[in-house]
Amino acid sequence: MNSLGREFIITVYGESHGRCVGVVIDGCPSGLPLTAADVQADIDRRRPGTGPAFTTRHEENRVEILSGVLNDRTTGAPLNLIIWNNEFDNSDYERIAMTPRPGHADYAAHMKYGGFADRYGGGMFSGRMTAAGVMAGAVARKLLAGVGIEIAGHTVEIGGIAAAPAAFSSVKTIAGKDTLRCADPAASAKMNELIAAARSEGDSLGGIIEGIAVGLPVGLGEPFFDTLEGDLAKALFSIPAVKGVEFGAGFNAARMKGSEHNDGFTLKEGRIITLSGNAGGILGGISNGMPLVVRVAVKPTPSISKEQQTVDLRERKDTVITVKGRHDACIVPRAVAAVEAMMAVILADFAVRAGIIPKVL
Amino acid sequence: MNSLGREFIITVYGESHGRCVGVVIDGCPSGLPLTAADVQADIDRRRPGTGPAFTTRHEENRVEILSGVLNDRTTGAPLNLIIWNNEFDNSDYERIAMTPRPGHADYAAHMKYGGFADRYGGGMFSGRMTAAGVMAGAVARKLLAGVGIEIAGHTVEIGGIAAAPAAFSSVKTIAGKDTLRCADPAASAKMNELIAAARSEGDSLGGIIEGIAVGLPVGLGEPFFDTLEGDLAKALFSIPAVKGVEFGAGFNAARMKGSEHNDGFTLKEGRIITLSGNAGGILGGISNGMPLVVRVAVKPTPSISKEQQTVDLRERKDTVITVKGRHDACIVPRAVAAVEAMMAVILADFAVRAGIIPKVL
Amino acid sequence: MNSLGREFIITVYGESHGRCVGVVIDGCPSGLPLTAADVQADIDRRRPGTGPAFTTRHEENRVEILSGVLNDRTTGAPLNLIIWNNEFDNSDYERIAMTPRPGHADYAAHMKYGGFADRYGGGMFSGRMTAAGVMAGAVARKLLAGVGIEIAGHTVEIGGIAAAPAAFSSVKTIAGKDTLRCADPAASAKMNELIAAARSEGDSLGGIIEGIAVGLPVGLGEPFFDTLEGDLAKALFSIPAVKGVEFGAGFNAARMKGSEHNDGFTLKEGRIITLSGNAGGILGGISNGMPLVVRVAVKPTPSISKEQQTVDLRERKDTVITVKGRHDACIVPRAVAAVEAMMAVILADFAVRAGIIPKVL
Amino acid sequence: MNSLGREFIITVYGESHGRCVGVVIDGCPSGLPLTAADVQADIDRRRPGTGPAFTTRHEENRVEILSGVLNDRTTGAPLNLIIWNNEFDNSDYERIAMTPRPGHADYAAHMKYGGFADRYGGGMFSGRMTAAGVMAGAVARKLLAGVGIEIAGHTVEIGGIAAAPAAFSSVKTIAGKDTLRCADPAASAKMNELIAAARSEGDSLGGIIEGIAVGLPVGLGEPFFDTLEGDLAKALFSIPAVKGVEFGAGFNAARMKGSEHNDGFTLKEGRIITLSGNAGGILGGISNGMPLVVRVAVKPTPSISKEQQTVDLRERKDTVITVKGRHDACIVPRAVAAVEAMMAVILADFAVRAGIIPKVL
Repeated sequence: MNSLGREFIITVYGESHGRCVGVVIDGCPSGLPLTAADVQADIDRRRPGTGPAFTTRHEENRVEILSGVLNDRTTGAPLNLIIWNNEFDNSDYERIAMTPRPGHADYAAHMKYGGFADRYGGGMFSGRMTAAGVMAGAVARKLLAGVGIEIAGHTVEIGGIAAAPAAFSSVKTIAGKDTLRCADPAASAKMNELIAAARSEGDSLGGIIEGIAVGLPVGLGEPFFDTLEGDLAKALFSIPAVKGVEFGAGFNAARMKGSEHNDGFTLKEGRIITLSGNAGGILGGISNGMPLVVRVAVKPTPSISKEQQTVDLRERKDTVITVKGRHDACIVPRAVAAVEAMMAVILADFAVRAGIIPKVL
Repeated sequence: MNSLGREFIITVYGESHGRCVGVVIDGCPSGLPLTAADVQADIDRRRPGTGPAFTTRHEENRVEILSGVLNDRTTGAPLNLIIWNNEFDNSDYERIAMTPRPGHADYAAHMKYGGFADRYGGGMFSGRMTAAGVMAGAVARKLLAGVGIEIAGHTVEIGGIAAAPAAFSSVKTIAGKDTLRCADPAASAKMNELIAAARSEGDSLGGIIEGIAVGLPVGLGEPFFDTLEGDLAKALFSIPAVKGVEFGAGFNAARMKGSEHNDGFTLKEGRIITLSGNAGGILGGISNGMPLVVRVAVKPTPSISKEQQTVDLRERKDTVITVKGRHDACIVPRAVAAVEAMMAVILADFAVRAGIIPKVL
Repeated sequence: MNSLGREFIITVYGESHGRCVGVVIDGCPSGLPLTAADVQADIDRRRPGTGPAFTTRHEENRVEILSGVLNDRTTGAPLNLIIWNNEFDNSDYERIAMTPRPGHADYAAHMKYGGFADRYGGGMFSGRMTAAGVMAGAVARKLLAGVGIEIAGHTVEIGGIAAAPAAFSSVKTIAGKDTLRCADPAASAKMNELIAAARSEGDSLGGIIEGIAVGLPVGLGEPFFDTLEGDLAKALFSIPAVKGVEFGAGFNAARMKGSEHNDGFTLKEGRIITLSGNAGGILGGISNGMPLVVRVAVKPTPSISKEQQTVDLRERKDTVITVKGRHDACIVPRAVAAVEAMMAVILADFAVRAGIIPKVL
Repeated sequence: MNSLGREFIITVYGESHGRCVGVVIDGCPSGLPLTAADVQADIDRRRPGTGPAFTTRHEENRVEILSGVLNDRTTGAPLNLIIWNNEFDNSDYERIAMTPRPGHADYAAHMKYGGFADRYGGGMFSGRMTAAGVMAGAVARKLLAGVGIEIAGHTVEIGGIAAAPAAFSSVKTIAGKDTLRCADPAASAKMNELIAAARSEGDSLGGIIEGIAVGLPVGLGEPFFDTLEGDLAKALFSIPAVKGVEFGAGFNAARMKGSEHNDGFTLKEGRIITLSGNAGGILGGISNGMPLVVRVAVKPTPSISKEQQTVDLRERKDTVITVKGRHDACIVPRAVAAVEAMMAVILADFAVRAGIIPKVL
């Protein structure tokens, strides 16, 4: 359903071209300083940048707090954070209502909801819905910051161009300012070229995002099923276009020997650390106190202007479709904020459950 | 926690070297024909085969049904399926209690549970716990078979050796009989050589498993968070050693263009199908009626006999460890049954929720 | 937390004197005809009537639908129903902030949320929050009506005056028009006298509400814990001022013999019915197809103008308080809509889970 | 379903005449000293006493711990506590399989599960299933005792005979030793006479149980729906035969004025207390630090030897039934342990969630 979490619980609502996109957050500790501006900052990081990757359509996306805050502090009551949508021109969607766009949820949603699903702009399946998650993530990040847990994400690959490995500090500073959210300027430049080329062909590109969390205590995550990997993956797969999730060495672990992959332990300044990070900071589904590293594969934007093969659902015959409108040629940079947000929501929930974030601040 | 599912809910219990491993299944429809022998067949598929990959230790693993069945039919009451453990020699674990094994949950569990965790054989973090999931999977597979949904998994890579692509029918027949659960006999032979070499060095190998589900209706999966990808990934990451999960083209999607990745639609014998399978049968988190394809990365067995760097938790100093005992040099083949089981449990839950599997059979 | 249900899930948000009161409904089947006016009708039934029982304060309470509806049909996406609050004069609450009102949540909330709880108008503990439940109930009632299940509540006792027993049809028609929601005009007149007397003394009265659901199939409710009685009771105890819940003969069952209490079965026109209704339509936690009858005890309105003993939380000393403002001298009649709504929400959830209400209408 | 709780979660399984009755407890903090004997003590308190109230059938009911404990301490893994059943003579149940017993779940279960429900001894609807809850309650009580929270229940009414009010200390000592679990010896004697009379007529009696919890902190319970009242009521209604639940003044509150019902606050030895206990220790769904008082109405045992009206489900015609076997003429005394257990389970869950009971002991 549209909720996530056990003690810090988010419930998203809204549609791409409906009245609004929003999120209710239940179980947020009381006493957290919170204003709409705090959340706005994260929403703004999700905004399309300038360059070939991005749509030229701009939305205002002003965050409002409808409940749960009094005198700029959370009260313990459910928070409701909302962004009102602009007016949309839905004429193109009317035209394509019965010809599902390849790569989109259109067909599956049409069948699941018996033709009643909101198809405009992708309805509740739109990437725009990640704004709800990003608002929740902003609150979660504030909670985590209070106990020394930080999260940052960056673009590590677009169109096959891989960025050089980056330390957490570079990810925060360099990637945060790059339009493609990449910490490797040379790679970023090449990625931009590829994106421009794809755009000029009416095509799109995908890529890989890496999310890092530092400052985690040992012990977050619950076996057998609420593992840190499992709950993070579940949250990350809710981001439209994500088709793969891996931790630490991830799929490369499949090609390593045990003696290569196992992270040995050592003591450093009285603290137990691992000598390598192949586990991505997670053992047995539980945080081991090292940086948590996750990577997600993002498929190329399905909205392309090339002609594609589809069917006419009403007349039940083959046809073709050309998706119009101003779309991102590569959504990877904009999805970075969503990856960070989903990580924050899951880690905040585990930290509240573990008593690391207290119920009253 | 140790439960999974919303209407078809499994709860696992037990320890590797405790009295038993078992699972309670709540919400199983009534009227399903079920005997211990039905479940035993799936448990036996999880048994180590012969060859270099496998431990030479053999457990009996006889399934008993403790509740929920009357006259060989499920009653609607919770099922409790149990396997009693053999007696174990725990002397080696006593020795290593305070020196966590790299790659295992030992350290994280020790810290999380304040030193009270059962460490023998890995306690509840052992791969043996997947037997509980496999028992639940056996019930789920029976439910799914009743509505025409079939699941099969196979080994697609070990130690860097990739198997040739295989159709679902080959996966069921050829892989089912191969000791490495691989549908490509030539690749299987090479994998076995690599495993033998790794074992002789006291080392281990990882690999990749692919799971396929066919016969799915359109519409399983719930946006925004209970997506088919998200819930499957969460379940699959509960299998010890899984470090990555991808659907369809997965991480390769990151290197494709939109025009390559989007699966066009067409009508075939009156049914809407896609022209390719890059989405892995899932759009917007919802099944689209095509085969569901998921791949999981399995890290190399962490139990290796090579000396490894660790710490002594009591004396808080660096030390080394050599893990003794008879371990699988490659757990990939044995994990195939667990992958199939987790897929079955999640799909059965969605099918019950969607009303596709009725509450009374 | 602030959510209720398993497949038809409501999440309430808002505060008495904040910006709004609202509810997100997840899992509502698609295709249900729904307009704000449909919900408005139920909200209007919750409005204070005229007479001694009621506050003279009137709020507009206009329902808006923020999401989940397209072309007056539910889409399958989460519904968000909202009422915007008027501006409030909070000066009195400022004054009493540190002197908790007896019978209110003030003290418990102050302690639980570390002083950050919204105290104005009772914050999220206000009876006004039942408007959120009533909006959800309006949707649930529409779903239930589609499968022949109807719900009606009535006042059966106020200030010790008991109404004569009433058939379901009288409850719907007579009680629906009575200002005290009582189906017995003579009793209603006496109740009004008692309320007027209590009001003139600056005091308040409680009472008992009976809720009846007809048209239920056999089989709703899930042992062992999600019983029909248990889930209904949980929902009903969320209504502020409810201090008791009983089904069928309820507490009187404790004074009956088994031979008196057991409802014998008989066949009537081919249908199995019971000869009496002592079970309230529920056996083993499961509906038996007979009318479901529940009664809830409502305590007297805690806001009274008589001086009461309390403490000053800041100065930690005894003091007295007089609650000002225009309050209902008896909230029983207004709580009837909330009782009906909670019954509807729970029954709709069970009916969706049982597949009686389909996921697409 | 058969689970209860959010962080301290119990899942019951088993049948009255099946192989066993048991409970899996997930989320129990690690480090709790626990042996089978600890749990056995609570199970023994549920045993039928001697006297007219009780069946003369005696079961051994020996508790075993299947998982979750190592060296007599909980490990953090799921606990599985089990009681093996004796062999049963099911011939009488065969006879009555198609003639549902009035007052029992037979008919509802038969319809719900399509005739597949286990009918022997009531299957999973039997009062015997409360043994599973009592085992869970024993663990919960140990957890609560560690933070100074104590629970005791007593019989306050049987067959219309009410016991004199009793202080918590009397409830613990006097009621604990009385065969009817009544703290008023004179009332207990009269109750026994009534029960003997009912038994001699082949009839049965019901009654009222009061449960008291002391030592609660302020702040347990979660608005809006996971109120202390709501969650306790849900748990208590899972006890077969419970038809009403009330807190503090309960249904009597409906007959009080606000000035009588409101509990004024005062300071006593630096602690804020209430001057009366009409709220039963709960305000706004949250504990206020005063004793929590709940009363449950227990209907008369439905198994009576008098002839009763029923239907033949196969032949679909009216018939009569006489329930044979040795049954309790009054189950109230035996249900006291179940009431205490359900209170303990809910309070332990809230205390774990609030961080009052730590995750590692």
